[in-house]
Amino acid sequence: MGVKRHLLSTADLLLDDALLVLDTADRMARVADAPVRKLPTLRGRTVVNLFFEDSTRTRTSFEVAAKRLSADVINFSARGSSVSKGESLKDTAQTLEAMGADAVVCRHSASGAPHRLASWVRGSVVNAGDGTHEHPTQALLDAFTIRRRLGRLDGLAVTIVGDVLHSRVARSNIWLLTTLGAQVTVVAPPTLLPLGIDGWPVGVSYDLDAVLPKTDVVMMLRVQRERMSAAFFPSEREYSRRYGLDADRAALMPEHALVMHPGPMVRGMEIASSVADSPRSTVVDQVANGVSVRMAVLYLLLGGGTDRETT
Amino acid sequence: MGVKRHLLSTADLLLDDALLVLDTADRMARVADAPVRKLPTLRGRTVVNLFFEDSTRTRTSFEVAAKRLSADVINFSARGSSVSKGESLKDTAQTLEAMGADAVVCRHSASGAPHRLASWVRGSVVNAGDGTHEHPTQALLDAFTIRRRLGRLDGLAVTIVGDVLHSRVARSNIWLLTTLGAQVTVVAPPTLLPLGIDGWPVGVSYDLDAVLPKTDVVMMLRVQRERMSAAFFPSEREYSRRYGLDADRAALMPEHALVMHPGPMVRGMEIASSVADSPRSTVVDQVANGVSVRMAVLYLLLGGGTDRETT
Amino acid sequence: MGVKRHLLSTADLLLDDALLVLDTADRMARVADAPVRKLPTLRGRTVVNLFFEDSTRTRTSFEVAAKRLSADVINFSARGSSVSKGESLKDTAQTLEAMGADAVVCRHSASGAPHRLASWVRGSVVNAGDGTHEHPTQALLDAFTIRRRLGRLDGLAVTIVGDVLHSRVARSNIWLLTTLGAQVTVVAPPTLLPLGIDGWPVGVSYDLDAVLPKTDVVMMLRVQRERMSAAFFPSEREYSRRYGLDADRAALMPEHALVMHPGPMVRGMEIASSVADSPRSTVVDQVANGVSVRMAVLYLLLGGGTDRETT
Repeated sequence: MGVKRHLLSTADLLLDDALLVLDTADRMARVADAPVRKLPTLRGRTVVNLFFEDSTRTRTSFEVAAKRLSADVINFSARGSSVSKGESLKDTAQTLEAMGADAVVCRHSASGAPHRLASWVRGSVVNAGDGTHEHPTQALLDAFTIRRRLGRLDGLAVTIVGDVLHSRVARSNIWLLTTLGAQVTVVAPPTLLPLGIDGWPVGVSYDLDAVLPKTDVVMMLRVQRERMSAAFFPSEREYSRRYGLDADRAALMPEHALVMHPGPMVRGMEIASSVADSPRSTVVDQVANGVSVRMAVLYLLLGGGTDRETT
Repeated sequence: MGVKRHLLSTADLLLDDALLVLDTADRMARVADAPVRKLPTLRGRTVVNLFFEDSTRTRTSFEVAAKRLSADVINFSARGSSVSKGESLKDTAQTLEAMGADAVVCRHSASGAPHRLASWVRGSVVNAGDGTHEHPTQALLDAFTIRRRLGRLDGLAVTIVGDVLHSRVARSNIWLLTTLGAQVTVVAPPTLLPLGIDGWPVGVSYDLDAVLPKTDVVMMLRVQRERMSAAFFPSEREYSRRYGLDADRAALMPEHALVMHPGPMVRGMEIASSVADSPRSTVVDQVANGVSVRMAVLYLLLGGGTDRETT
Repeated sequence: MGVKRHLLSTADLLLDDALLVLDTADRMARVADAPVRKLPTLRGRTVVNLFFEDSTRTRTSFEVAAKRLSADVINFSARGSSVSKGESLKDTAQTLEAMGADAVVCRHSASGAPHRLASWVRGSVVNAGDGTHEHPTQALLDAFTIRRRLGRLDGLAVTIVGDVLHSRVARSNIWLLTTLGAQVTVVAPPTLLPLGIDGWPVGVSYDLDAVLPKTDVVMMLRVQRERMSAAFFPSEREYSRRYGLDADRAALMPEHALVMHPGPMVRGMEIASSVADSPRSTVVDQVANGVSVRMAVLYLLLGGGTDRETT
């Protein structure tokens, strides 16, 4: 980053690059407190939100971030577009670039789609979630949130709970947090763990209650019912009993420990409302920090720009 | 307003506050005639259009108003959003606020939704129509339109005709016009009047022809076929014959009297084209005034802002 | 243009007006290479994209063009709007104008809709494609692309291939290119030619191979399967064999000859990938030039504006 052109995954993000994003996001967060929450940095630049899957939350976060940097934002939904008339992803990409897109923020149901996009365009590509693969800005905003709350990442014990199998959020967090020096443990029903989990740099447990007392940060994942068949998933009651975070279970954690959730939350099953709304919950912080981190990413990828006006 | 934080209803709007909106809208209307139709007042502020029901007209009016004040506008449609993944209204609200929404303009099919929203966020909430309850900016733009055409509101006789039962426009107008000193009469088939109408500060009539000669302003409501069962509604021909405003009927009104309609119009049934397009019709004025009134509301709620730039 | 108020067709575009657009687009293209790709020219002006048919490509191109000129852009999709509640096109038009639209960019499935729109509003109307009638900015960007590549238009032999019957792109190009001094030949199966083709200022051929050696520019049309019944259309294989542009066929053209396609392309049937991606293909240039040409059109129609700020 700064030098690199794209943000496609956290698996190949170097420690220095990750820290540069977090430090830049610290500066961007100050803009939110300024009397006028706007920087002229990306004036005249065009950011295209290319969303093949609906995600109003993520799209809005990028849109707010880009506008706060004074970029022009184009929302390009695949529904009703030339994509539905048979146009290939490559032609769509070249079309957007020809129109002057400086950055394309891409959400796609196919793992790897943003990588292919990046091979076809000269502009910057930001992966905003591809299949079950990665969601790097989510991991960066999670890391940013932890660092702001606990002061550091190195040496922390982070526990990720739930549907790791289908979660791009889990994958991006595992790679990034490991790079940043945290120790990650995943807790899930065996059917919701990927086959190759043994080769990942994580501890594995099936017993949430045993792990929580040694946990600095617990990340609850959204159960993606739309991605899984009945065979994979125990009953909601059984899932909630073993892997849901209720008040009693949250009380097992050290006093300083954080509760995180990427949203949207299904209150009750994954996480009790009392926990989600407790002071140790960072759910709202994560959303606010998402804007700062995405501002930092766009700022670094688009080179800081110039702010002279063409008149 | 100015002091208050939200605009949720006209039922609790004080006379002074209502007049402040109308006076401010007068100033905003002058921007429409300026060489560059843009004020820097809300630069760096973010206005979110949170529409759970489709309404391109109202959404566009708020979008034009906010952009004319230099705010950034985010359109957040509930379709395809986290709402459809089971997120609660409260979590959606807190998400938007965390992203930096200074004002949320909310349209919802449930009466009271914007009030609940307002209890959860620190920013401003503007009710852009909730169920059959209220649509305050519509009433304010109607009042503004009357005052600009007839010079005053106090003492005027205003007749509201049609589906009062399902109309949030009727409700908001009744409370606001009464506050502003007008006398309101409603005319509708008995099945399209609310049960509690006797407790409202209005006259009730079933005979439009008898009322029109004493009317300064007639407001035709849109027949909302999508909200009513066949039992409530007479045949279109019967409705049109008794409650439609054709040229003969319009001729019963005093020469200075105005014809208003909130749009979209179903020409023919509710209102004859010749009446809708006549000089006494304010239909187009209402749309133009809607932008000025919404600029005034956003300006007053967001505190007039500062226009220094963060560089 | 400059003097005229609308851009509805190329059939009535005078030579001088067409050249003015192309010359202005040359200047606009330079903005794309500037450090900040933004002109303040249309600050405070509002451009509404009124799309009754989905077309993300064309809508996005106009949106980028308008934003690069600092206009505010409102996307007004007919789906979910008052149009679906029974509002007439005339009332929609007057509503948009009352909200302050300085220009309405209109895409409609009915031929002639933008002309009717233009008779109802004082602002500017740009036809962005109406039924099978016209798509004037597409023809202007095609002419602009040819002139930039080959240095001139006068005297060139242009061959348009494919579904001329349903193509507004073909119609707009035929009128414009003829005005600009080019000789146009159309090549298509007899069932995909309009009945009145004998009265058009074009040559007609059914033998692509015979025409290509004398062609300076070949324009491939998109086969609009959604517009045609089986009776009109030979098999895909048969169509591709006789009218598709593969590498062998492209080799029949002179070395300097260009291959054009308005996009989105159905690779394989209409055009081979190797041809679409060859140096003689202008597909990507056309997209980039589309932004410059639309900037020129908006700039000329909206009068160049003033750039004083109202404060």
